[in-house]
Amino acid sequence: MTITMENVVSLAKQRGFVFPGSEIYGGLANTWDYGPLGVELKNNIKKAWWKKFVQESPYNVGLDAAILMNPKTWVASGHIGNFNDPMIDCKKCKSRHRVDKIIEEALDKKGMEMVIDGLSFEKMEEIMKEHAVVCPTCGAFDYTDIRQFNLMFKTFQGVTEASTNEIYLRPETAQGIFVNYKNVQRSMRKKMPFGIAQVGKSFRNEITPGNFTFRTREFEQMELEFFCKPGEDMEWFEFWRNYCKNWLLNLGVAEDSIRLRDHSEDELSHYSNATTDIEYKFPFGWGELWGIADRTDFDLKQHMEHSGEDFNYIDPITNERYVPYCIEPSLGADRVTLAFLCEAYDEEQLEGDDTRTVLRFHPALAPIKAAILPLSKKLSEGATSLFSDLSKHFMVDYDESQSIGKRYRRQDEIGTPFCITYDFDSETDGQVTVRHRDSMEQTRMPIAEVKGYIEEKLQF
Amino acid sequence: MTITMENVVSLAKQRGFVFPGSEIYGGLANTWDYGPLGVELKNNIKKAWWKKFVQESPYNVGLDAAILMNPKTWVASGHIGNFNDPMIDCKKCKSRHRVDKIIEEALDKKGMEMVIDGLSFEKMEEIMKEHAVVCPTCGAFDYTDIRQFNLMFKTFQGVTEASTNEIYLRPETAQGIFVNYKNVQRSMRKKMPFGIAQVGKSFRNEITPGNFTFRTREFEQMELEFFCKPGEDMEWFEFWRNYCKNWLLNLGVAEDSIRLRDHSEDELSHYSNATTDIEYKFPFGWGELWGIADRTDFDLKQHMEHSGEDFNYIDPITNERYVPYCIEPSLGADRVTLAFLCEAYDEEQLEGDDTRTVLRFHPALAPIKAAILPLSKKLSEGATSLFSDLSKHFMVDYDESQSIGKRYRRQDEIGTPFCITYDFDSETDGQVTVRHRDSMEQTRMPIAEVKGYIEEKLQF
Repeated sequence: MTITMENVVSLAKQRGFVFPGSEIYGGLANTWDYGPLGVELKNNIKKAWWKKFVQESPYNVGLDAAILMNPKTWVASGHIGNFNDPMIDCKKCKSRHRVDKIIEEALDKKGMEMVIDGLSFEKMEEIMKEHAVVCPTCGAFDYTDIRQFNLMFKTFQGVTEASTNEIYLRPETAQGIFVNYKNVQRSMRKKMPFGIAQVGKSFRNEITPGNFTFRTREFEQMELEFFCKPGEDMEWFEFWRNYCKNWLLNLGVAEDSIRLRDHSEDELSHYSNATTDIEYKFPFGWGELWGIADRTDFDLKQHMEHSGEDFNYIDPITNERYVPYCIEPSLGADRVTLAFLCEAYDEEQLEGDDTRTVLRFHPALAPIKAAILPLSKKLSEGATSLFSDLSKHFMVDYDESQSIGKRYRRQDEIGTPFCITYDFDSETDGQVTVRHRDSMEQTRMPIAEVKGYIEEKLQF
Repeated sequence: MTITMENVVSLAKQRGFVFPGSEIYGGLANTWDYGPLGVELKNNIKKAWWKKFVQESPYNVGLDAAILMNPKTWVASGHIGNFNDPMIDCKKCKSRHRVDKIIEEALDKKGMEMVIDGLSFEKMEEIMKEHAVVCPTCGAFDYTDIRQFNLMFKTFQGVTEASTNEIYLRPETAQGIFVNYKNVQRSMRKKMPFGIAQVGKSFRNEITPGNFTFRTREFEQMELEFFCKPGEDMEWFEFWRNYCKNWLLNLGVAEDSIRLRDHSEDELSHYSNATTDIEYKFPFGWGELWGIADRTDFDLKQHMEHSGEDFNYIDPITNERYVPYCIEPSLGADRVTLAFLCEAYDEEQLEGDDTRTVLRFHPALAPIKAAILPLSKKLSEGATSLFSDLSKHFMVDYDESQSIGKRYRRQDEIGTPFCITYDFDSETDGQVTVRHRDSMEQTRMPIAEVKGYIEEKLQF
């Protein structure tokens, strides 16, 4: 079957994965709230990332830097000078557009593919004329000049709105890592190579957010900055590129749902030795999940220059002195959550014209690991006692209303890998029936073995 | 021994728990970054809260609402109208102060205790005159009038800084729950009573933040909004009041480190039936950790009125119709992290004039659960293999430098409950020595049993 965004968005809202933000007040353009199942899914994804990128890694440690930073950070990083989108206004209908986007969309309709981002304004205007890129709102070709628009959210700290109090919501988590490079290296007595990992919110005042939770102004990132000796950077770039890809595959993403797109020479940032995007085949098209970049010593050198700190590393054995190179695998937490949701979504054709909607999550990511379904309300004492036992170890649901068939289908729809049916025999033989989401097969097993059985399936 | 904030802050910085934010740029007033050990500690605390308030609770579900909300939310909640601090300027030295704070501090020096917050401006000015509350900066008594200062951080979404684009960083997570009340209740088919729990960042433009991470402008909250039938609210208030207290005690906070302060009649908000603060005895004095309030139907009714939505609940059995009452236990994640850090800190006097610094965390909260210490670098193969095995299940450190005694002390200082010494005998007898942080006792046990042994100690 072909999955549409409508399928995913509708299920997400109905079953408590994602709600429109501030919905009772008509929403707030492109903000989304994770409901009870969405927050479990996203937390499981963040935990799975932390497990592989911090806990199990002999190289990496974590960090949680503040969202609000000294504005000098954004001067050094280049965000105050260069973090802009090109914008244009339609003089006729007064609508405002991101220039690169409307050109790309117009070309796309003609079957042409072209990367506009990064071109000069003159070049963009030339292409607009050549291909008659009209206003998407009213169809006119009557524009203002192209202008730059800084994407950082600005606010004021302290009691007056003077420019001295102007601060920004961070547009990326990476800089929180770079400014703490030395504090972390020193306090953790780290030797090269080592990495610093962080999960946290970032904010970009995008002109045209969209595609559900794919591009939002408020979003969460999972970033690793991995420092190594110059010259060993391409080796580590390859290492993390594979490591990231395998993380997705091990958690149930199919090989043909992703592609690795290496940036060409002229697409690369001036400081980058190599960059690869891992893209996912969303129902709306290919979209970037993970950017893996060899950023050389660009960031640390920028901060050395602007702060006066010395970020040279002295090798304790060879006494070599160098500013480390940095590999940055940067993953969007909301994007990858949406990818796992799309990947899991299935409408299965059953016998007799019947279909079932099922979310085929890897058990480690499933919001609910097991549902306890007593066959009768008379069995609630034993069944709730099983709920208490299992919920000490993982998320468990308890459902005693309607037929067992309906209850199975409800659990399929939210991706619960195991349904545990507690029946009258359970009271005497101490066994329950475990029903598997994907195969719908049922296994009878002793209650005492259920916890261990499920915990084993949560490994990845 | 008497612990000072200096002890805690110094250890926190040296050992990678908490660094000053943007430190290389001279910081940003009162922002803090959690280092590699701090982020583990705080994450463990958040997980422990989620485990008890969501996972193990038959009533509660989670939520993760956006930080940016439709501004109508803040009109309904009263934050646009009433979320103010009283401020005053010293005409002589031009310094600005929070009025209630400078009065309280001045009275405190005279040995008087008085709650100023909530009094009228006239009353505050009267008290200032009566007690000669001079400017804390220059000692003058020459003030402007008292004015209100709204504590919400303001920013602009979209391309122009017009007032129509004005939005706020949420000053509390609670409202994200109230606006989603119906979405959650419907999608999760919840019956009364039930609760919605959330962990997330909030922002308040405090005039006088301070005491390390105790009061910061950017902070994280762990809030539960528990909905129930009017009339049953006081019973549930008692229930959650005890539940919160036990959560702290079960995770190692001593009875005499906390106190429960019930708000008196005239201290209560006009809509609240009862409020209790759980306070912790910080080295700088008693400070609020957890506010537990019976908020009646105030919030849902405010949002009904402003949004036009109907939040009446119809009991499926009795057909009774009512707007639920709400109990709100609201905990500061940064504050409770600081409390656990202070509670754990100890300098133990040992034999022979020796002392050791030790963080006595509950194993569930300790950043690192076990450290693997090979007695010789020749043993690294077997020791790293043990690291790989254990790190699949919990955070493990690996340390092979310097004497075993120094390595023990380093682990004590960061609160690691178990040190696993891998020696030459381990290679042949398959056993390791497990050394306990608190008692410093050592136990020899088979390598195969270590994981289970530690996992059992992580339960709470």
